[in-house]
Amino acid sequence: MEKNISSAVIKRLPRYYRYLGSLLDNGITRISSKDLSKRMHLTASQIRQDLNNFGGFGQQGYGYNVELLYGEIRKILGLDKTYNMIIIGAGNIGQALLNYINYQKRGYNFVGVFDKNPKIIGLSIRGIEIRDVDTLDAFLKSEKVDIAVLTLPGNNAEPIVETIVENGVKGIWNFSHLPIKTPEDVVIENVHLTDSLMTLTYKLTEHEASKKE
Amino acid sequence: MEKNISSAVIKRLPRYYRYLGSLLDNGITRISSKDLSKRMHLTASQIRQDLNNFGGFGQQGYGYNVELLYGEIRKILGLDKTYNMIIIGAGNIGQALLNYINYQKRGYNFVGVFDKNPKIIGLSIRGIEIRDVDTLDAFLKSEKVDIAVLTLPGNNAEPIVETIVENGVKGIWNFSHLPIKTPEDVVIENVHLTDSLMTLTYKLTEHEASKKE
Repeated sequence: MEKNISSAVIKRLPRYYRYLGSLLDNGITRISSKDLSKRMHLTASQIRQDLNNFGGFGQQGYGYNVELLYGEIRKILGLDKTYNMIIIGAGNIGQALLNYINYQKRGYNFVGVFDKNPKIIGLSIRGIEIRDVDTLDAFLKSEKVDIAVLTLPGNNAEPIVETIVENGVKGIWNFSHLPIKTPEDVVIENVHLTDSLMTLTYKLTEHEASKKE
Repeated sequence: MEKNISSAVIKRLPRYYRYLGSLLDNGITRISSKDLSKRMHLTASQIRQDLNNFGGFGQQGYGYNVELLYGEIRKILGLDKTYNMIIIGAGNIGQALLNYINYQKRGYNFVGVFDKNPKIIGLSIRGIEIRDVDTLDAFLKSEKVDIAVLTLPGNNAEPIVETIVENGVKGIWNFSHLPIKTPEDVVIENVHLTDSLMTLTYKLTEHEASKKE
């Protein structure tokens, strides 16, 4: 695995992966950096630079082999492996993620859903029973879990994070808006849904301003 | 309004806005770029560069005035205005956004929720009635809507986008996974929830690899 890849490049990898996947779905087996740049709204030189980070799978005058590049990025993103996941918080966002990610059929394997609301404990979503969050510790002691998805209110999250980390879960996908502190060997991705809404209102504002000029 | 601000800087603005907001909540009225850098995991020079794009509100030896900076970024992000919004698709993710954004009480004002499922048309979420999506065109002709949130399956989205654009809606927050083409004067933000999950699995993979070295 190469090192020192900038986080900006890493952030773009899922986009490459999605685009290459849709090319494959459409039977397109090779593509130039120029064509890829048009689709992705990046410059061709940016794309060449990005992909060079991973060994450079392009060939002068031929372009990129889509399947090869897709497979490599898949590996780099760790998507050639499977991950046991749990969701903590079975509200709307937890359910939406469960539905959506199950549907994608990548290597994400939901093994448990937890909530503290007695009204929904015992019900099933997509064939997975909602368990009492009080049983989380025992669950984690008996099952291997790679990623915990936090879709509960931030003010409830702190003791849960402790339980998760103590039991050796190494990945946290955090929708809870709690700035979580964890040991160095635990990886966290924080999701703030409204950040992209703010980017939208920024662009709308800029747009209005440019019309007035 | 300054021009030519890189999209990387713009993407970071919501984060600055969130951090500054939490500083204000905690009664912190000024902060050095160094302290801000520790909290935000960016270098101090990066922060100074970023904020210089907007006129530079820092002062040598004093740091940033948190309230002033927060207010300026708020304006830059267009959050000093109000936006009439509709949600199209009242499933889990639509409901989650409605709940969450309403709760935030920024200038986002939901004026309508639409779905095509007869079982839920007529029901209310957070006091907003779910309307038949077939009435969308008529609704948009009588109400001013700034932003449409697309939380419906991508394969249903195309005719809806046409209706929205024809009726002069200028902002689309797209969760539908449909690569939408719209006129130049319409702004789109596409959200791919699993991109950040892929970033997480990337980091987990990198982590595993570094342990083995």
